[in-house]
Amino acid sequence: MRVQIAIIGAGPAGLLLGQLLHGAGISAVIIEQRSQEYVLGRIRAGVLEQGTVELMDIAGVGGRMHREGLVHDGTELCFKGERHRIDFHKLVGKTVMIYGQTELTRDLMDARRALGLPTVYEAANVAVHDFDTAHPRVTYEKDGLAHEVQCDFIAGCDGFHGVCRASVPTDALHTYERVYPFGWLGILSDTPPVSDELIYVNHERGFALCSQRSTTRSRYYVQCPLDDKVENWSDERFWDELRLRLDREAAERLVTGPSIEKSIAPLRSFVAEPLRFGRLLLAGDAGHIVPPTGAKGLNLAASDVRFLWQALEDHYRGNQTALEHYSERCLARIWKAERFSWWMTSLLHRFPDNGDFGRKIQEAELEYLVHSEAASTSLAENYVGLPFGE
Amino acid sequence: MRVQIAIIGAGPAGLLLGQLLHGAGISAVIIEQRSQEYVLGRIRAGVLEQGTVELMDIAGVGGRMHREGLVHDGTELCFKGERHRIDFHKLVGKTVMIYGQTELTRDLMDARRALGLPTVYEAANVAVHDFDTAHPRVTYEKDGLAHEVQCDFIAGCDGFHGVCRASVPTDALHTYERVYPFGWLGILSDTPPVSDELIYVNHERGFALCSQRSTTRSRYYVQCPLDDKVENWSDERFWDELRLRLDREAAERLVTGPSIEKSIAPLRSFVAEPLRFGRLLLAGDAGHIVPPTGAKGLNLAASDVRFLWQALEDHYRGNQTALEHYSERCLARIWKAERFSWWMTSLLHRFPDNGDFGRKIQEAELEYLVHSEAASTSLAENYVGLPFGE
Repeated sequence: MRVQIAIIGAGPAGLLLGQLLHGAGISAVIIEQRSQEYVLGRIRAGVLEQGTVELMDIAGVGGRMHREGLVHDGTELCFKGERHRIDFHKLVGKTVMIYGQTELTRDLMDARRALGLPTVYEAANVAVHDFDTAHPRVTYEKDGLAHEVQCDFIAGCDGFHGVCRASVPTDALHTYERVYPFGWLGILSDTPPVSDELIYVNHERGFALCSQRSTTRSRYYVQCPLDDKVENWSDERFWDELRLRLDREAAERLVTGPSIEKSIAPLRSFVAEPLRFGRLLLAGDAGHIVPPTGAKGLNLAASDVRFLWQALEDHYRGNQTALEHYSERCLARIWKAERFSWWMTSLLHRFPDNGDFGRKIQEAELEYLVHSEAASTSLAENYVGLPFGE
Repeated sequence: MRVQIAIIGAGPAGLLLGQLLHGAGISAVIIEQRSQEYVLGRIRAGVLEQGTVELMDIAGVGGRMHREGLVHDGTELCFKGERHRIDFHKLVGKTVMIYGQTELTRDLMDARRALGLPTVYEAANVAVHDFDTAHPRVTYEKDGLAHEVQCDFIAGCDGFHGVCRASVPTDALHTYERVYPFGWLGILSDTPPVSDELIYVNHERGFALCSQRSTTRSRYYVQCPLDDKVENWSDERFWDELRLRLDREAAERLVTGPSIEKSIAPLRSFVAEPLRFGRLLLAGDAGHIVPPTGAKGLNLAASDVRFLWQALEDHYRGNQTALEHYSERCLARIWKAERFSWWMTSLLHRFPDNGDFGRKIQEAELEYLVHSEAASTSLAENYVGLPFGE
């Protein structure tokens, strides 16, 4: 098989890139080691920046998102038992869209299938080759048969644990990492969200987040120790803990119900530099991870994809240097989002080693933040998504 | 001796309070364990918020400050070898005044002497008594004789190491503290400042600051290890190190000369709560310390003094509860300044344990800061001084 672009990974980054390349008349195949059901079963982000919404529209797959997604004009910060609203729309004239990553992925899969574009699921032993030459190749096995894809470029959209970054010689890669001393215990339930908007909670028992996927499906999180186990948390214990961290009014209004998913996720900041190695280009989690606090993971993947699609389109239009700035353009935006995600995480969680001084500094920052228009605007402009740069 | 207010400490806080109380017709004595020359010999801050300038005017001692002080409309941040200006005046319509703490202290001393107001220097064994009753007392020795001052209130303006906070039962006091893993090596020299405004430098060799006291007197700092010694630093070595941390243009323009003072200061964040214990009221460094990075130490002392002067005036006008909110009003502003000073310190210094990720986050934050109007405005409004609250 021969295509222009071999995309590794059928998560949102790979699927969105495939869709945009198709629109640009560039041929691609997507190779995914997991099954379609497995990919759709992963419960992930749910907050889309306006730029991500735009990109879904450009890709021609925004229809259901606009019908079913919820536009949020702002968010709430809760500390010392009181909620304070940050009005994104008023402060920066932009909003975010609540639409689950699962739904977005499904829309992209449906569109790809309708167009008859090639996707290989359950590909075993995926390997990338010769990306330091003009003739990269991807090999994999499927149903016991060996396959090879010849291509111009390989797009590594295969996530943090994927094969693409792992195939780069370690001396060509500089990595930056921080692991946080806690996790997020998350629950998904078919109950109406406690509030129309998200509530981010700083509480002495630990962080909590009231999020949502729709008007009937809620996603809640509480900060937990890194070595905690899901088995320790009955639904009842989770709801009790969440109530303790909310303000009284929200706690009383909270509608509980059986969990349909429950899991503990570690929090990590990670960046690999650069994102291009000859004809291998990383996008999304393959190149960087943010803690989920600022809702930036999926949005950063989308902005990498935007840069990559534009660079590939330019390349095939004859601009031989179009891909040279891919890494640098992505990284400028990535580091700002890493900074924001680290800051939101630092501001809202209990850190076991920060002591009383650290806790008082958090409270002072939150007090300042909600009462200063400049500081609120800074939060808002980051949350809705910074510009894409020149 | 009997006065309404016994002020302990003849630093800027005590002297400014004395001057304001005199204006309000409230009698006070200032008791200082050091000599006048010693107090004037301490080289400290040099940046006054607009609110501090106003307070000097209210106290009637702003004449020389307005003639000799330098109004700064902004400051510069230098990182990755380039300087970026933050224009306070344009962003928030306010400025700061460059006027050395030594000069401000001298003006206050001169005014006090001219008014014939009582000040006791070189008082030994100063002790505060009975401040949990309606009849507090201060005792001290001078020239071998024991003295006692009876008063209505004791104002503890005697700094971090003073006797006032140390006289409070430890179980009545909650303290918050952070000690930073580095110091500031500072030099004072009679050379023209390298720039019209201050330059704050984030450099991989460590923080540096180009400050000034006048158009002919410069104050420079470089971050150094906590266990470093002044003896290790010849003037030549200091200037060489400073040049290495500046951008090329500033390094070439730097005028060097013999140091007239050279010292290493540790960096500490510290807050004691509350600031009132019966009839003992703490103000300035006696209650809190900030690292010098945000130039907040003297200004916070001035804002405590403003609240204390107003509360005492209200009290003597018959408002029996005027002093009840003193501590709370001060602390709301103190914690915001502690937050800002901690943030400026965190943003600009090399932290030995923060690693590569921490360094990249600093760079991302600086890049964001100088390019975002909201973030620049947030820095500016804190630097020129937040409002005094209701």
